[in-house]
Amino acid sequence: MYQAAKQLAAQRAVELVSHGMCVGLGTGSTAALFIEELGKAIASGALTDITGVPTSIDSQRLATQHGIPLADLSNGFYCDLTIDGADEIDPQLELIKGLGGALLREKVVAQNSRRVVIIADASKRVARLGTKSPLPVEVLPFARGVVEKHFAQQGLRPKPRLKPDGRILHTDNGNIILDCSIDHVTDIRQLAKDVTGRAGVVGHGLFIGLADLAIIADLGGQVELLSRMSCG
Amino acid sequence: MYQAAKQLAAQRAVELVSHGMCVGLGTGSTAALFIEELGKAIASGALTDITGVPTSIDSQRLATQHGIPLADLSNGFYCDLTIDGADEIDPQLELIKGLGGALLREKVVAQNSRRVVIIADASKRVARLGTKSPLPVEVLPFARGVVEKHFAQQGLRPKPRLKPDGRILHTDNGNIILDCSIDHVTDIRQLAKDVTGRAGVVGHGLFIGLADLAIIADLGGQVELLSRMSCG
Repeated sequence: MYQAAKQLAAQRAVELVSHGMCVGLGTGSTAALFIEELGKAIASGALTDITGVPTSIDSQRLATQHGIPLADLSNGFYCDLTIDGADEIDPQLELIKGLGGALLREKVVAQNSRRVVIIADASKRVARLGTKSPLPVEVLPFARGVVEKHFAQQGLRPKPRLKPDGRILHTDNGNIILDCSIDHVTDIRQLAKDVTGRAGVVGHGLFIGLADLAIIADLGGQVELLSRMSCG
Repeated sequence: MYQAAKQLAAQRAVELVSHGMCVGLGTGSTAALFIEELGKAIASGALTDITGVPTSIDSQRLATQHGIPLADLSNGFYCDLTIDGADEIDPQLELIKGLGGALLREKVVAQNSRRVVIIADASKRVARLGTKSPLPVEVLPFARGVVEKHFAQQGLRPKPRLKPDGRILHTDNGNIILDCSIDHVTDIRQLAKDVTGRAGVVGHGLFIGLADLAIIADLGGQVELLSRMSCG
C-alpha cells in the first residue's frame, strides 16, 4: 500500500543526482525503485557519466538491468551521494537498517559517502528505534550459538533469520542474521558499542550518525524532509 | 629451530587440562603441538571426557585426526580452558594473533572461555606489540579497497595477505586479511577501537585483556610463566 509513497521518495532522490556523480545504490524495495528511476534518467540522457556502487548482489543485478555503469571497487571508492532505504528512522535521523540482509555492505558504502540520503514511506518513522523492527545483527556461523546465548542473557531475544522455506538465511557474506528485540533499550549508542565489541559479530543494523537527510513520503503525496542539521 | 621450545610449552599446557573439560583448541604451529599432546593424553586414558572446540578448519581436522571429540557448537559453548599460540606477547600479556588466519574464531573462543592460556617459544616476547609482526585485520572482500585506503591514510601500510602462489588469501570465513604495520602506534587500545569501528572490518588480531597466562619456553629448556595477575 505504500508503493506510491516509496515511488515519490525515489523520484525526489533522483533530483539530487548530478552529472558525473558516483552514487551508492541501496538495497530493499524503496532503494530498488530509486535504481529504476536512476536507470531511466541515464537512458533518457538526463544524467550522464554516472557510476554506481551497489550495496548487495541484488542491487548490483538491478543496476546492471537498468543500465547503470558500476564502479570498480578494487582501488577503493568514494560516493558523492548514497541513496538507500531504512527500516526505521527516529527523530534524530538515526536508523535501523538491514532487514534486506545487506547491512554490512550498506554501512561500508554509507561510511564512504560524502552524503547519505534515506528514502522511505512514512510508516518507517518511529519515535524510538526498535519499536516496529528488530535489530539485525550479522554473525559468523561458527559463533551463532555463543552470540545467541549472550544476547538472550541481555534480554535481546535473538531470533535467527530464516528463508521462506524455513531454513537459516545466509547473507551475501555467508553469515547468519540474528534479529534482536531492542524496544526496551534506552541507550542506543551504548548498545551499538556493546554489540560491536562482541567477537563473532561482524556488523549490526544500527546506523548512528550516518544519514544526512531523509526524504519521507506519505500516502497523501506529501513529502517531508528530515535533515541532520535540523533534527533535535 | 624453536620446535623443542614449542613442544615443551605444549606439554606444560596439557598438564592444565583436567577430566571432563571443554577445551578451546588454538590454531598455528604451537597450538598444533598441543592438539597432538592432548590427543595422546586422551588415547592413553590419562585424560577422559574431554571435548574440544576448534578455532579453525585446520585445528578441527587435526583434532579429529588425534581422536579428540569435538563439541557441538550449535547451542553455544563455554570452554573451561583454551590453549592457543600467539604471534607476539607484550609484558602486559596483550597479544597479536592471527598470522595463521584464524583470528576471528580464535577470538570468539577466547571470549567464551573461563581461562585462556597462551603457549609460545621465547621469540614471541616483545617489549611492544607490532615490533616483529604485522597486525592482521580481517576485512570483507567488498570493502577491501576502501579499508586499505583508509588504513594507508592512517600510516598503517596495509598489505593484503597472499597465498604461497601469490594470489589473495581467503580466510575460513571467505574474507581477506590486511596485514598492517603498527610499530609506531603508542595507544594500542585506542587503535583496537578505531579498527573495530570501521565498517567492512570484521575482526583484528589484537587480543586485549583476553589471555590469563602465557607459558613461554626458551631454547635452553627454561619455562617462564607470565600471568595477568603478576604483570605490570
